[in-house]
Amino acid sequence: MHLAEYLFRRLYQLNIRSIFGVPGDFNLVSLDYIEKCGLNWVGNANELNAGYAADGYARVKGISAIFTTFGVGELSALNAIAGASAEFVPVIHVVGFPSTIAREKKLPLHHTLGDGDYDLFMEMSARISSAVVVLDSPEDATKMIDDTIIQCARSSKPVYIGLPMDLVQAEVDVTPLATPLPLDDARSNPVIEEHRAITTVMERITRAIKPVILVDSLAGRWNGLHPTMSFVEKSNIPCFSFPMAKGIIDESLPQFGGIYSGSVSDPGVEEQVQMSDLIIHIGPRATDLNTAGLKNELSHIDTISFRRDSIHVNELGFSNLSMNGVLRRLSEIFGTTKSNSISSSGSDNSSMRSEESIETDPNIGFEDSMNALLGRKVKSSPLLTQDRLWKRVSSWLEEDDIISLDVGTSAFGALWSPHTRGTESLFQLLWSSIGFALGAAVGAAFAAREQESESIPPRKRRTILFTGDGSFQMTAQEVSTMVRHRLGVIIFVICNDGYTIERMIHGWDKSYNDIQPWDFKMLPAVFKPEPGSVRTYSVHTEADFDALLTDPQFGPASNFEDKQPPPLRLVEVHMAKEDAPQSLHRMANAICGKKK
Amino acid sequence: MHLAEYLFRRLYQLNIRSIFGVPGDFNLVSLDYIEKCGLNWVGNANELNAGYAADGYARVKGISAIFTTFGVGELSALNAIAGASAEFVPVIHVVGFPSTIAREKKLPLHHTLGDGDYDLFMEMSARISSAVVVLDSPEDATKMIDDTIIQCARSSKPVYIGLPMDLVQAEVDVTPLATPLPLDDARSNPVIEEHRAITTVMERITRAIKPVILVDSLAGRWNGLHPTMSFVEKSNIPCFSFPMAKGIIDESLPQFGGIYSGSVSDPGVEEQVQMSDLIIHIGPRATDLNTAGLKNELSHIDTISFRRDSIHVNELGFSNLSMNGVLRRLSEIFGTTKSNSISSSGSDNSSMRSEESIETDPNIGFEDSMNALLGRKVKSSPLLTQDRLWKRVSSWLEEDDIISLDVGTSAFGALWSPHTRGTESLFQLLWSSIGFALGAAVGAAFAAREQESESIPPRKRRTILFTGDGSFQMTAQEVSTMVRHRLGVIIFVICNDGYTIERMIHGWDKSYNDIQPWDFKMLPAVFKPEPGSVRTYSVHTEADFDALLTDPQFGPASNFEDKQPPPLRLVEVHMAKEDAPQSLHRMANAICGKKK
Repeated sequence: MHLAEYLFRRLYQLNIRSIFGVPGDFNLVSLDYIEKCGLNWVGNANELNAGYAADGYARVKGISAIFTTFGVGELSALNAIAGASAEFVPVIHVVGFPSTIAREKKLPLHHTLGDGDYDLFMEMSARISSAVVVLDSPEDATKMIDDTIIQCARSSKPVYIGLPMDLVQAEVDVTPLATPLPLDDARSNPVIEEHRAITTVMERITRAIKPVILVDSLAGRWNGLHPTMSFVEKSNIPCFSFPMAKGIIDESLPQFGGIYSGSVSDPGVEEQVQMSDLIIHIGPRATDLNTAGLKNELSHIDTISFRRDSIHVNELGFSNLSMNGVLRRLSEIFGTTKSNSISSSGSDNSSMRSEESIETDPNIGFEDSMNALLGRKVKSSPLLTQDRLWKRVSSWLEEDDIISLDVGTSAFGALWSPHTRGTESLFQLLWSSIGFALGAAVGAAFAAREQESESIPPRKRRTILFTGDGSFQMTAQEVSTMVRHRLGVIIFVICNDGYTIERMIHGWDKSYNDIQPWDFKMLPAVFKPEPGSVRTYSVHTEADFDALLTDPQFGPASNFEDKQPPPLRLVEVHMAKEDAPQSLHRMANAICGKKK
Repeated sequence: MHLAEYLFRRLYQLNIRSIFGVPGDFNLVSLDYIEKCGLNWVGNANELNAGYAADGYARVKGISAIFTTFGVGELSALNAIAGASAEFVPVIHVVGFPSTIAREKKLPLHHTLGDGDYDLFMEMSARISSAVVVLDSPEDATKMIDDTIIQCARSSKPVYIGLPMDLVQAEVDVTPLATPLPLDDARSNPVIEEHRAITTVMERITRAIKPVILVDSLAGRWNGLHPTMSFVEKSNIPCFSFPMAKGIIDESLPQFGGIYSGSVSDPGVEEQVQMSDLIIHIGPRATDLNTAGLKNELSHIDTISFRRDSIHVNELGFSNLSMNGVLRRLSEIFGTTKSNSISSSGSDNSSMRSEESIETDPNIGFEDSMNALLGRKVKSSPLLTQDRLWKRVSSWLEEDDIISLDVGTSAFGALWSPHTRGTESLFQLLWSSIGFALGAAVGAAFAAREQESESIPPRKRRTILFTGDGSFQMTAQEVSTMVRHRLGVIIFVICNDGYTIERMIHGWDKSYNDIQPWDFKMLPAVFKPEPGSVRTYSVHTEADFDALLTDPQFGPASNFEDKQPPPLRLVEVHMAKEDAPQSLHRMANAICGKKK
């Protein structure tokens, strides 16, 4: 078997079916093996977009691969790879390398700096990857590939595999392929330590009067989605999510109380968490946007922290164990004891309360003043505002939806809205690279399509993108990939004349926060879609938006035939540039100490 | 004076007038100083495009600046910065950094990996920059800025300046601003060494019977454009350019003999160079695409190599001198002695001969066979072919034109075509990142506009982009920047169904070399141009193309009014995907040993 085939068969074993990337002369020959191995070559419009797509795909399917060419290709993807690193997303970055001879002889080939250094790009990637390797002989190559993939899965971070042109067709031993890779972290003997931890944790939880669970961003990593969910369900302890953990917990659970993020929490939530006497903090990750500015407001409360391979009960630490293993065991204990007696401090549904608070918000007259400001004839329906938008979206979402969000008004609007039916949200609240969401939606749509065809009974997963007009422009050509592969993504572009999140930080009226206004509705036609495969819309008022979302031809996944993919739907959502979700106002206040 | 103002006033002193980049929360406050310092903030659609634009601007004006935000912004620009490094283009990359306190305390802010490492992105940039610095105190900051800028100019490579948010408004000493930065390389005492070198060089040239000058890519760097030109003119020695040196020598000079690139030379050129008895090689830089595959075919001929700070006469080296200084002195000597007696081995004009050879090329019946192949009714005019296209373009170019070329059929077509009127060509024959040319055209158009307004008498500089349909898609949104700033660029998109240069290397009919076909003509309208500010065209035949180029409403710079900028003109140039310029066929043969 040729080395390239070995590599791609390994990727197939990981349940990867689509490979993202752009062809280049140093990866061309290997591309011949992709189809042969049952994989689908996406062919993105550029490498940054391909990187975002790989990130989105990995978030939905567990792991992904991007294939670029040496130098020019790989460097264009670095921002996306760094994002995957920051956000703990396992992405395998395969780079088509010049031949081992060129590298040995330090030849001044194109796509190099001309200085004979063939390692520097790999070394740049090493700073943002958990493993990097350049294959250099047929003998070692398969083990190097296997080790690097294992490292990718176990670290939940990007890795880098350089595949030299002259090794693509090298014959390799096929034997290792018969054994699937051991992706789970093997630990020597965690049982004793886990037992000690479980005893201490159970003792402490039982003693608590008002315990709360805080689910944080690292809870879903390392195959931890199910153990976390299960622990929350079985324990029946009131549960809150940090914004970065959005989507890990089914928000329709009765014990789910809302989003906790210090002073940027859902209304009432901060008080509930503050009043608890025990915080069970799963997968903690303090970042400024996740915690409303890194203020440690809970340090006075007893805390059990579940980290990937350690658990801390206040200062008492248990290490060299598996968080997921302990959570599974705790779920079993709670399941057996039917320990539903633990008091729920959040007895009513906080997400409902959140809606009420919006009703009484002093800013609710915003659209009227906007109408006056714009000298616009007031239509029968008020203009759409951010808070109205996200409230309406919240009730429109369906089970199994994937929503991809740029960090701007989109993420702040959607993350702080209740998702009662357990949608999956893709966003980068730590890395916060705008333009991500469009690329990630491409990757997610491929993943969703694959999952649709795999599941019995068949299910439909919509991929829905919420992005801003400034964010959209960063990666706009990736809509071409949607058109090319008939990905029926639903795109909402918030048209509000520029970088609103930046305005809230500095330069409210400054021209550098402006962008060129685009006719977004016209864009898909540039990509020559097949007739009937694209629909575009424009909404300005609440009534427009409501009519759109209730249009049976627009939204529900079930209304589209199986025979052909649903159409791409692009919606311009026009809103005032001064308008932002309440959560973003509160975050800006928390971080910048500003009022607007 | 605030630190940010100091920085931008220094940039102004370098004759920089436009700053490229994208706003982000870590550079917002500094953006307030740009306008104040007489600079123009461009606001590109994304950072990669901004990086390419900065590269293009620096190639035309000598130096440039790009301003991005920490992490997400700077990493997106890395491919462009690496390209500037490979191609010796001085670009100052200013990065808006989080505060010095955040860096000291290793806070897990957004736009970081959350690990407290604030140096890793700078260290990644260090691998492709000649200097990197993060300002950390008001006391040292101005000297750090000055030293880094000097390093940028002297190395002709990118540098990196990190500007922390909390230092933007720090008060700094303004005194150094009164002294312009010493950008030229100061050498202790080069005179003696230069004198020795000049004597030896002159002795060797005088003895030569058939000397030739080969101008190579590093000849124009370090302010070397004029010394090189002057030496060629005054010495009257037959002169050839390597492809990477395209545009350094005025091709209308009688002693200019054409493009030399080993077996990919203009017809007859390889033989002339091979027959010479002395090669005067200015600014040598061997790369695979520059030399048709790194074959050293001239090693048997005596050679004088002019490098930046050394000169070698065969094995005899003279170091610690200035190539430009020596070239200036040699020009003086030739100018005084009227040394026109040196024989010209290329007495007839090689560029004319090149045309003849095209006429007799066996592939010239290509368009007829294409017509047959496509089953297309043969119009009265034959379909346009690559070789016809570039020949026609060649005679259409005007003095002072800037042409930006992607490395594909565009660069191979244009570089091997005679530019008789001394146009300036922007391309990356070493780095070869496709999508570059569109971004670089934006930068070049700003530079050209500034030069137009500075020059007396006023002159008009057209910026002309030649790119492929695959390349165009990589950076397409930058057309929005052209529309926004009314840059009247002339865009030719070679529409030939994908990555033709890749097909010639591998995968002639493979789908991975296909792209989504776009309706390019429709794209500018997406960006909402002002009425009349955009014109689009589509050409298929020689007659179409000829009619377009002779249309007074299309081409000549002089036909547009001064009152308002000329329109953006976008031309779809439709050609067969199997067609490529002869030079590209020959290069593919030379490098891959392939025939197609």
